[in-house]
Amino acid sequence: MQISSLLESLIEGLRCLPGVGPKSAQRMAYHLLQRDRKGGMNLAELLQNAMINIGHCQDCRTFTEQEKCRICVSSKRQQSTQLCIVETPSDILAIEQTGQYSGRYFVLLGHLSPIDGIGPNEIGLDKLKQRLANETINEVILATNPTIEGEATANIIAQMCAELDIIATRIAHGVPVGGDLETVDGTTLSHSFLGRQKIDLN
Amino acid sequence: MQISSLLESLIEGLRCLPGVGPKSAQRMAYHLLQRDRKGGMNLAELLQNAMINIGHCQDCRTFTEQEKCRICVSSKRQQSTQLCIVETPSDILAIEQTGQYSGRYFVLLGHLSPIDGIGPNEIGLDKLKQRLANETINEVILATNPTIEGEATANIIAQMCAELDIIATRIAHGVPVGGDLETVDGTTLSHSFLGRQKIDLN
Repeated sequence: MQISSLLESLIEGLRCLPGVGPKSAQRMAYHLLQRDRKGGMNLAELLQNAMINIGHCQDCRTFTEQEKCRICVSSKRQQSTQLCIVETPSDILAIEQTGQYSGRYFVLLGHLSPIDGIGPNEIGLDKLKQRLANETINEVILATNPTIEGEATANIIAQMCAELDIIATRIAHGVPVGGDLETVDGTTLSHSFLGRQKIDLN
Repeated sequence: MQISSLLESLIEGLRCLPGVGPKSAQRMAYHLLQRDRKGGMNLAELLQNAMINIGHCQDCRTFTEQEKCRICVSSKRQQSTQLCIVETPSDILAIEQTGQYSGRYFVLLGHLSPIDGIGPNEIGLDKLKQRLANETINEVILATNPTIEGEATANIIAQMCAELDIIATRIAHGVPVGGDLETVDGTTLSHSFLGRQKIDLN
């Protein structure tokens, strides 16, 4: 390609973004150079700032540039006795957007995967045990992903909770709302039968 | 949203990229923080470098960090007597990828649009006239976009060429190769009839 080498490296660099292939990267680079150099400069600064300064919350391990995240320092959240366990910081965002949950969180930053050398300490279970022992927590909601690894991780944490006499619950698996029974896979459908609930008419 | 403010600004900043909405921006930010901080830092540096150092080629006005671009300094290209006029630097890339053209280029960086205050000087027609007068150019290939503005721009340049006694040609409009006659719009189809060529059996 007969284009400038700086431009070539920029196009290559943009491909570190998820979902960005060679064509989109090219379009992005030309767009920024042609129409939005200010936005490009701003993005460079924000990226640098975020990559350097964003660390993990001391309590829940989500992303924050402070010692503790906004949820952990909230006094309203501290009154709650529920703790929700998720795999990644973006899971917190998804749960917060439902508006259904007002307790605290703990982020595993992964899931158990002995084959990749990810054991209980790598996903912070030592820290979680400490929190469960020191804080007033009555219910641990296991919101790990519905995958084999996610289930295994949820089981290990449920055992830990049983030892400490804390209730552990698992989020429901079933047919997605607005979905179509016909298109739902068999495993999900059998989960939705196993997890059926009595219709309460009151 | 209960997330870190630095992270919020990064998500907002990523939206300056074309085709990136709130959901993709969020996914990109979390991906970089979680899995590719090094890639993020590298991208920040490349962006900054490109936005500051990439300017326009003195001759053809495409993007380059040098005085003249790689195409304009190529001695092989200088032997050609063809000059191709395009609207944007990315058009050059598209034409180069066909491998069909080995002449020089001139980038208008836009098209005539009197309503937006874009007249002949804004798209560098003064500079183009100078080049046509000083260089040995026998044919000007007008590869502006097949839009009303692109056609108007092509017409103005064709007039300029006529005054200087240079042949001006327009790239063909017609049915896209591999396409389906049924799905082609009427204007394109009538262009493909007007531009029909005799089949040469030799």
